[in-house]
Amino acid sequence: MNIAAAAQRNEAGIVAVLERLGARFGERLQTGRALREQHGHTTTYIRNQAPDGVFYPEALQEVQEAVRLCAEFGVPVIPFGTGSSLEGHVNAPAGGISFDMSRMKRVIAVNQEDLDCTVEAGLTREELNQYLRDTGLFFPIDPGANASLGGMAATRASGTNAVRYGTMRENVLSLTAVLADGRAITTARRARKSSAGYDLTRLLVGSEGTLGVITSLTLKLHGIPPAISGGVCPFPTVEAACNAVIMTIQMGIPVARIELVNTLGMRAINTYSKLDYPESPCLFLEFHGSEAGVAEQAEMFGEIAAEFSGGPFVWTAAGEERQKLWKARHDFYWASFVLRPGSKALSTDVCVPISRLAECIMETEADIEESGLVAPIVGHVGDGNFHVAVMMDTGNPAEIARAEAFVSRLNGRALAMEGTCTGEHGIGQGKMRYLEQEHGAGVDVMRTIKQALDPQGIMNPGKILVPADT
Amino acid sequence: MNIAAAAQRNEAGIVAVLERLGARFGERLQTGRALREQHGHTTTYIRNQAPDGVFYPEALQEVQEAVRLCAEFGVPVIPFGTGSSLEGHVNAPAGGISFDMSRMKRVIAVNQEDLDCTVEAGLTREELNQYLRDTGLFFPIDPGANASLGGMAATRASGTNAVRYGTMRENVLSLTAVLADGRAITTARRARKSSAGYDLTRLLVGSEGTLGVITSLTLKLHGIPPAISGGVCPFPTVEAACNAVIMTIQMGIPVARIELVNTLGMRAINTYSKLDYPESPCLFLEFHGSEAGVAEQAEMFGEIAAEFSGGPFVWTAAGEERQKLWKARHDFYWASFVLRPGSKALSTDVCVPISRLAECIMETEADIEESGLVAPIVGHVGDGNFHVAVMMDTGNPAEIARAEAFVSRLNGRALAMEGTCTGEHGIGQGKMRYLEQEHGAGVDVMRTIKQALDPQGIMNPGKILVPADT
Repeated sequence: MNIAAAAQRNEAGIVAVLERLGARFGERLQTGRALREQHGHTTTYIRNQAPDGVFYPEALQEVQEAVRLCAEFGVPVIPFGTGSSLEGHVNAPAGGISFDMSRMKRVIAVNQEDLDCTVEAGLTREELNQYLRDTGLFFPIDPGANASLGGMAATRASGTNAVRYGTMRENVLSLTAVLADGRAITTARRARKSSAGYDLTRLLVGSEGTLGVITSLTLKLHGIPPAISGGVCPFPTVEAACNAVIMTIQMGIPVARIELVNTLGMRAINTYSKLDYPESPCLFLEFHGSEAGVAEQAEMFGEIAAEFSGGPFVWTAAGEERQKLWKARHDFYWASFVLRPGSKALSTDVCVPISRLAECIMETEADIEESGLVAPIVGHVGDGNFHVAVMMDTGNPAEIARAEAFVSRLNGRALAMEGTCTGEHGIGQGKMRYLEQEHGAGVDVMRTIKQALDPQGIMNPGKILVPADT
Repeated sequence: MNIAAAAQRNEAGIVAVLERLGARFGERLQTGRALREQHGHTTTYIRNQAPDGVFYPEALQEVQEAVRLCAEFGVPVIPFGTGSSLEGHVNAPAGGISFDMSRMKRVIAVNQEDLDCTVEAGLTREELNQYLRDTGLFFPIDPGANASLGGMAATRASGTNAVRYGTMRENVLSLTAVLADGRAITTARRARKSSAGYDLTRLLVGSEGTLGVITSLTLKLHGIPPAISGGVCPFPTVEAACNAVIMTIQMGIPVARIELVNTLGMRAINTYSKLDYPESPCLFLEFHGSEAGVAEQAEMFGEIAAEFSGGPFVWTAAGEERQKLWKARHDFYWASFVLRPGSKALSTDVCVPISRLAECIMETEADIEESGLVAPIVGHVGDGNFHVAVMMDTGNPAEIARAEAFVSRLNGRALAMEGTCTGEHGIGQGKMRYLEQEHGAGVDVMRTIKQALDPQGIMNPGKILVPADT
């Protein structure tokens, strides 16, 4: 894949920063090779580009101090949450310092009455929900991985229940970030809405570390619904399943999750998780509401499914059953490897208007077939978002070329359907060329903003934006 | 009020642009005094500062052509929707050209299956809903005024049912805007979510014309609920009413509208609309859902109200009754003038975390009393947002000073409670100094973005941001 060349390594600057950070922070600067490589890209097949040092800040002021040092010597700053992103966001193509936020995990405040909380960026979503367990509240955004909340904000993450609760875009009320010159800003107050100036919160959400290091966030919380039910519903074809999804959304059924797994994906899940779900396209569903409400939703969905020859739709409110179901769904990524042991996964992430979803998935399945790829499909289909996990033998250049050609066609297909090349993973290193196709002149505007806020280009270089002069 | 001095008039440039626009567009450039004054600020008491000419574009390309001309001669560009904003957004402190978008009203597409539509910026929200009347869909954002959708996006408007449907921030999927150099960008595709690069949509939403002229928008639509019910519920005190609101939100009752009017406001409404509602603090409510759902919501709310000594809560599903109720609520602005004929209204717009709402409103009522002002209160209290309409004799400088001191205290109070100085009206000319208090270093970041995207400062100058060197 054509990863654009990032800026040259600034060897002298890197040496100087490592020296000074080491002197100042002692063992909180690490330079061992294995640790550095763990802080480069480790998921999927993008090449690992390790940083020169890993710094563990423990407070906002330490992030500021270290960023100022990097700015003084023109050295890259690469924010690191848990390393679960998929597009090479944590790679260091020009070297530099990885800012590992894992020691900044404090819960600063939980405002139960206001349904919000303020936490440091290194806290993970599971840790937050564990902390909230006695409050009756939860943080719903669930990208599968137990990612850090700062990282989730940086990539504008979403996942299985965005269809009901929105994405990080809708659920971050405010954040504090350290900019390229070491200034810290807090982007908003705790009010639910505001028209006070430019929306800096939304500018930082999704900026993938290229504008600042997020150090803390104020997040919306939601009441744990009194009742939850869910189930799996098989369909004869992907088209039938997609059409059931479209009708469910159009009828305004407030599904909390509605996930598609295609036939190959179901085979992987059954093998990996030792289950016996039908090996045909399935929808995994969850409903949140009152007891009467979730029963009504499940019944309405069952009728829609039957209309498209789907079913039987067996649903349950039993917690254990539901957990098994969602564990199987969340293990999809790992399950994919049973289809081709030893392979590496390339995950695509297109999102299209829901009216085009069936068409987009069917054309993509045909394309997979013609390309001779092993590539199951899973999707947050209520949003029109789906992933193809292309299982590749990365030792085979011809196969990589075929996979890349497939990805290019898939992204082109989504763009032609007024969709996006990434619904939730972000651009990182992997999708920069598609960003240009998607946004056209808008990319120049992004570049202007980047240049204005980070004139030296030290913030996570080589991600999202190819320099204008390359 | 300390409206910061905007840039000097560029007399030669203005003459040149008027000449060229007139030659190119004929009568679509108007320079008559009365019409120009109608395109300066006309609501509330901020001084009218008329533009030098009013241009009526009919297409994106014409907006681009005219902006390029203004850029060439360094002349201000002031986008104009319907002129219903409250903070002097359409004033021309340094002269320039008002871009009246009222001839750009086309509905470009309604995608019923995707619950979205694309419209030109001059279309008003009522015109859109009229257009949609046979589709079963509606556009919910309702700021009271029949504002243009472009103007609503530019000020990040919300209104009575934001508590359920969100604000313009959540409901604009994408927009097309002409930037200061005449480039047009479309900020996003039609997919429901995307992680592709910086969120230019949210950067433009709320930018109040200072970064670009919005020419078209893609908006989320919502299904018209099968049942709607509503009613008015009196409370013994504002505190009791606020506490009922807090509990309603915390219990997750999905109210579509929950509006507070204080005792003085109820008196104004009764007089103006010839009604006989109780003259005590009242909540106006609306519920959307299935027939059983709205009944359940209304009952649950009734129980909460009783717990706080409110009620009786009489609700109805009859359309006519509901329309009367909401017309009375929407006429509040006009009704306020019966409290003091001949006065002008200064509308405040603070928004606080809901846990602080009762306290904030009670302190504000006491402040009004002590200040000897005539100032009813109305609020979108489900969001923590409320307005004080200060009815002023603008011929009395001492009274203006008292009102301004009151506003300053009110904004300071909201900020101290982690709130914002503007929930939905925007900064415009009227709140620039509070923006600094609210955002601190964030305002410098906004200024950097403004400088990068509009280096000449021609886009709606003198709004949101005071130049850094004043």
